[in-house]
Amino acid sequence: MRTNRVREIWNAGGNVVNGWLASSSSYSAEIMASLDFDSVGVDLQHGMIDFDQALPILQAISVQPATPLARIPWNDPVWIMKVLDAGALGLICPMVNTAAEAEHLVQAMRYPPHGFRSFASVRGPLYMGPDYAKNANDTVIAFAMIETRTALDNIAEIVSVEGLDAIYIGPSDLALGIGHPPAPDPTEREVLEAIEHVRRTAVDAGVVPCIHTAGGDHAKRCFEQGFRLCTIANDVSLMRKAATAEIALARK
Amino acid sequence: MRTNRVREIWNAGGNVVNGWLASSSSYSAEIMASLDFDSVGVDLQHGMIDFDQALPILQAISVQPATPLARIPWNDPVWIMKVLDAGALGLICPMVNTAAEAEHLVQAMRYPPHGFRSFASVRGPLYMGPDYAKNANDTVIAFAMIETRTALDNIAEIVSVEGLDAIYIGPSDLALGIGHPPAPDPTEREVLEAIEHVRRTAVDAGVVPCIHTAGGDHAKRCFEQGFRLCTIANDVSLMRKAATAEIALARK
Amino acid sequence: MRTNRVREIWNAGGNVVNGWLASSSSYSAEIMASLDFDSVGVDLQHGMIDFDQALPILQAISVQPATPLARIPWNDPVWIMKVLDAGALGLICPMVNTAAEAEHLVQAMRYPPHGFRSFASVRGPLYMGPDYAKNANDTVIAFAMIETRTALDNIAEIVSVEGLDAIYIGPSDLALGIGHPPAPDPTEREVLEAIEHVRRTAVDAGVVPCIHTAGGDHAKRCFEQGFRLCTIANDVSLMRKAATAEIALARK
Amino acid sequence: MRTNRVREIWNAGGNVVNGWLASSSSYSAEIMASLDFDSVGVDLQHGMIDFDQALPILQAISVQPATPLARIPWNDPVWIMKVLDAGALGLICPMVNTAAEAEHLVQAMRYPPHGFRSFASVRGPLYMGPDYAKNANDTVIAFAMIETRTALDNIAEIVSVEGLDAIYIGPSDLALGIGHPPAPDPTEREVLEAIEHVRRTAVDAGVVPCIHTAGGDHAKRCFEQGFRLCTIANDVSLMRKAATAEIALARK
Amino acid sequence: MRTNRVREIWNAGGNVVNGWLASSSSYSAEIMASLDFDSVGVDLQHGMIDFDQALPILQAISVQPATPLARIPWNDPVWIMKVLDAGALGLICPMVNTAAEAEHLVQAMRYPPHGFRSFASVRGPLYMGPDYAKNANDTVIAFAMIETRTALDNIAEIVSVEGLDAIYIGPSDLALGIGHPPAPDPTEREVLEAIEHVRRTAVDAGVVPCIHTAGGDHAKRCFEQGFRLCTIANDVSLMRKAATAEIALARK
Amino acid sequence: MRTNRVREIWNAGGNVVNGWLASSSSYSAEIMASLDFDSVGVDLQHGMIDFDQALPILQAISVQPATPLARIPWNDPVWIMKVLDAGALGLICPMVNTAAEAEHLVQAMRYPPHGFRSFASVRGPLYMGPDYAKNANDTVIAFAMIETRTALDNIAEIVSVEGLDAIYIGPSDLALGIGHPPAPDPTEREVLEAIEHVRRTAVDAGVVPCIHTAGGDHAKRCFEQGFRLCTIANDVSLMRKAATAEIALARK
Repeated sequence: MRTNRVREIWNAGGNVVNGWLASSSSYSAEIMASLDFDSVGVDLQHGMIDFDQALPILQAISVQPATPLARIPWNDPVWIMKVLDAGALGLICPMVNTAAEAEHLVQAMRYPPHGFRSFASVRGPLYMGPDYAKNANDTVIAFAMIETRTALDNIAEIVSVEGLDAIYIGPSDLALGIGHPPAPDPTEREVLEAIEHVRRTAVDAGVVPCIHTAGGDHAKRCFEQGFRLCTIANDVSLMRKAATAEIALARK
Repeated sequence: MRTNRVREIWNAGGNVVNGWLASSSSYSAEIMASLDFDSVGVDLQHGMIDFDQALPILQAISVQPATPLARIPWNDPVWIMKVLDAGALGLICPMVNTAAEAEHLVQAMRYPPHGFRSFASVRGPLYMGPDYAKNANDTVIAFAMIETRTALDNIAEIVSVEGLDAIYIGPSDLALGIGHPPAPDPTEREVLEAIEHVRRTAVDAGVVPCIHTAGGDHAKRCFEQGFRLCTIANDVSLMRKAATAEIALARK
Repeated sequence: MRTNRVREIWNAGGNVVNGWLASSSSYSAEIMASLDFDSVGVDLQHGMIDFDQALPILQAISVQPATPLARIPWNDPVWIMKVLDAGALGLICPMVNTAAEAEHLVQAMRYPPHGFRSFASVRGPLYMGPDYAKNANDTVIAFAMIETRTALDNIAEIVSVEGLDAIYIGPSDLALGIGHPPAPDPTEREVLEAIEHVRRTAVDAGVVPCIHTAGGDHAKRCFEQGFRLCTIANDVSLMRKAATAEIALARK
Repeated sequence: MRTNRVREIWNAGGNVVNGWLASSSSYSAEIMASLDFDSVGVDLQHGMIDFDQALPILQAISVQPATPLARIPWNDPVWIMKVLDAGALGLICPMVNTAAEAEHLVQAMRYPPHGFRSFASVRGPLYMGPDYAKNANDTVIAFAMIETRTALDNIAEIVSVEGLDAIYIGPSDLALGIGHPPAPDPTEREVLEAIEHVRRTAVDAGVVPCIHTAGGDHAKRCFEQGFRLCTIANDVSLMRKAATAEIALARK
Repeated sequence: MRTNRVREIWNAGGNVVNGWLASSSSYSAEIMASLDFDSVGVDLQHGMIDFDQALPILQAISVQPATPLARIPWNDPVWIMKVLDAGALGLICPMVNTAAEAEHLVQAMRYPPHGFRSFASVRGPLYMGPDYAKNANDTVIAFAMIETRTALDNIAEIVSVEGLDAIYIGPSDLALGIGHPPAPDPTEREVLEAIEHVRRTAVDAGVVPCIHTAGGDHAKRCFEQGFRLCTIANDVSLMRKAATAEIALARK
Repeated sequence: MRTNRVREIWNAGGNVVNGWLASSSSYSAEIMASLDFDSVGVDLQHGMIDFDQALPILQAISVQPATPLARIPWNDPVWIMKVLDAGALGLICPMVNTAAEAEHLVQAMRYPPHGFRSFASVRGPLYMGPDYAKNANDTVIAFAMIETRTALDNIAEIVSVEGLDAIYIGPSDLALGIGHPPAPDPTEREVLEAIEHVRRTAVDAGVVPCIHTAGGDHAKRCFEQGFRLCTIANDVSLMRKAATAEIALARK
């Protein structure tokens, strides 16, 4: 049986460098998964990707060693269950603002008696092996995104929800949510304090702190701050960045 | 009526920086086309792209100012005519080894009496305006790829074919074709001489010399050498390059 | 006007053998629908199928005599209404645990004044004929899946909901829901008793009892028990079963 | 920065002729957008279109001057946010029956502090320009569909919701909702009075009245009545109408 | 066993009104096939349709009584055999200029010993019945398009090719091919004489004369002239025509 | 670097059990590849699969240990090169009737100096490792299908073509080609003798004999006869066979 490498890295005290996919191409997905990322997340919220495109993308990631994750568009059982069936080993759920919402996420991700995930043999056993169903509740990772003032107010209750594995900060949304302009690598003191408050509260509750970053340098600083998974930009922003630089060289 | 910006730049004595798409996502295509490229080519030969995906990609490029080009997989009327119908304003054709093959390419791209392109009103008028049919023969650009020893031997005849607008060198294939390892930015003297020989022969015949490059720096050198259109890497290699750099920063 | 053959078979006292599709291919869908199934269900819950793929699948089933059904991923108006618009003549809805949920399902499936299905002329009239809108409320079949302990507790109220045509048991989920390992053809006494209790309660309320089975032999036993529609495995598990047997023969 | 032409026309006191897409083809979408429509709406509710097809359709509309709108299938944040991310400049939301539902729609469409739309840079800046995020709350248009008796009862409260820009009447659903047969161009007095009541209540509250019509003649009458945006049939019904007429000519 | 209705109509002395599809939507295909067309052709040459989209389109046509035909993009065995496998009952082949090309078309469409169509059981038996393979050579219809001066010169030889069932004139290409501007409903005397010459030569050889027309009125005149199958515009031009008319009414 | 398992098995003296895909679902492809097949072939000739669907299918096979092969629709460089780029490790080419055609196939599959395959870094290095380009000519397997009388006449010359690795018999086409009814598991003496003649001629020339079979039992007999790769039915015929059997059980 294959294992969830993200959990293994965390269990070994390591940090996870996570890639991010906003484009629907299974070809670029496989390329991203072939690089030195520990995991690659399929962004079904803000990526231009729908469920039918997520299946080949998750298969393409599975060809390579990186662990397949996904961000679902909402805390919605349709997306939670279909994307887990398609083989994602962790789900990042946006806009988790209360303990009740965190519980809903966790329960929709777990088979009874720990939740209400509907049972079926789909890509889990194909990708992970015949024991998938038995181990799925302990394998798939539940990430709650903390990105509003309400979530900040409820952070202690949210991270106390049993079965919640990790929190995931979206700095732009969090900044916007507490009255600042969106900034992928924020510098406003209030935003930085909110981020650190969330991180520390999560750690104290045994929940892994994770964050979306603007790039490798930002990720390095976040790892030093104590984050354990950092997402680095996404496929199309990386492409745009490199293209802009190469065009400038060509036009010099 | 919209015009073909590549022709305009050439007519004004300028050089064209061309982007390249190997992934089938119309979203990343639109992003590429929004950058400072003069044109963007859809690679239907080595890209993981099929005709049905080329249509939305060409539409996505059309939202932005860059001129839509395409590399077809072979000198084949099916692909030539379908991709022109879908709105490409220039076709780069691989493996043109003889004057007869160049003539076939040119004729398949032109309406009678200059060729045998089949007539229909498809995306041309939608994108270019109602005069598309009248002007198409003078608008769409025919690029012949020179990438084998046979093509080298026949280069003078090839560039003499009436209606051939440009030649396009694929350095890796050309290197391989004359007995050297494939190299996107070749350094072998024989390969460099072959490239320059093709370029000069084209220029002498009034045919525009174009080349596939390994990146902005290589493109700059090629422009200085006298090439008038340089393709810069492709969407997924740019993504890979930037991702590799950011991962290294994160892991430092 | 075409009729809903499943209703006709039931009205004539017969039993329905239902096929099941987990793969997104409209080609294999048409093959399944060409066999001796009375109906074929598109599994949008655990199948690797999205809405855009459901349309050609439902069209492909419509070429053949089998009646098109679908399992929606959740009791969600988006899916209920889009899949009915696409031509499904019955919807199997997972996780119906209360009478309120059953009422929601039924109402979302019926045009006013019997519900709140939004009105439009889409595939219904194309497939069924011009009277579709007038007859749709009496034509499309509402199936509520009974698969949790809560649903068991509420079964009498659920089957009393006006307009609910059928209940549908998922044995694996039901087993898991009441504390047993998932089993497509259960043998645990408590599970078997729960199944029979649901069946009998449904029958007593005039609601048709239906069940997902592990294969033809299991289906035969369920028909003998009094179930009126049995789903037989699915397209990919049938393929897997036959492939495994043929490989064994080849390797003997 | 591009502007939302529908808002501009309204601000200038003009009326909007809106096209409507029920087919998933980005080619026919571009053709529709090239005609003399001011805006073109992608019907994700009753059209046979899914999110992954909406992206190339919205891109195709963006090639042409018409403003891209969309009807979402339900008042659901998944659809609201994904379709706005894909570049729609206005969302028509079905079945808005209460002020609370109208508020939910509006809030899901606005970035904080005016709502809870999740922040990301996707097609907005590509299509509209770099200021998209700053201006999005004032740019995208929120249309609430009024189509049930409950909505009629609550119309005054609904149109008082801050940030609701427009109401949109679906005559067939409204007729059905108040006890009459569905009619795209209704003649029943009660239906006509309900429509006029909704229109006037909206106008009085400073909300723009819009309506789905059966064709150009119906639209003309609605403009005369004071409606400011009229949708004209849809792509496939126009096709069907013209095809039926041409077949009749051919068979004469 | 189902029959090829186009052959039946011809055998009964009747004329065939043929619809035409340029858009890739299987939904609009089914609508077109539900109208009073005798047959509907999938335009894989100038339509924005690829093979993978042709399958669901052909399935969608098969739901309705109209006979499925297709225009292939070239006289190419790949397209000929794949499209026949997908269930087309007739192929219209562009640019047949010589008897040898007509023979190639015919042979690629027939199983040995009458040709070299590769054998397999695909959609033929699903759609037509178990006898498909035995009858296919006599069922599927081979149409050669006559649209160049060369073809005109060779028309007598072309229509003498055994197994060629029909010729199909594309007036715009034929006009262009003999030195006139493209015109869907030509009025130039030389073009009209060429069309009549082709028609009569075909009839004299027992080959059915067919033509692409600009609409119902043009078709009616062509039927009166002796053509036996007339294609009427296409899906998107019908849509465009009706939309333009309705917009004008709305804006009056 | 990964290796081509089919070559390894052959080198070790073993036989290859090959699966076959006619449906375009990457999900059923991954299931097939997870079974005890040594290799799985994507049937782009008679399968209802196009190039854009072949990419995710080849990726899905790559998740599992089976080696990805493909049957191309014709001896056409477009298909040969695109499918190799997409990661197939062997190509089965239909209708190879002469040594010249076999040479064309082989050359289109090999990089210079052994052929004219166009060079690019696509899925080869992703799937096989960084040495792909260097080893590709020795890795990918060229299979020529022998299925006509002409091919029978030329078999000795065909199998003498340098670089041809294997021949592949399609019994139905071969039977039809020599005047017998198509039969997947032929019993006619002339057909059996032709098959054995081809097999022996191939073996004598050091070319591996392969065959399409009707199932496991037929494959077993072919292995005993000396064939070294047997394809077993296909995904949809396996599905059909099992479905038919289960329906019969259910209806008993």
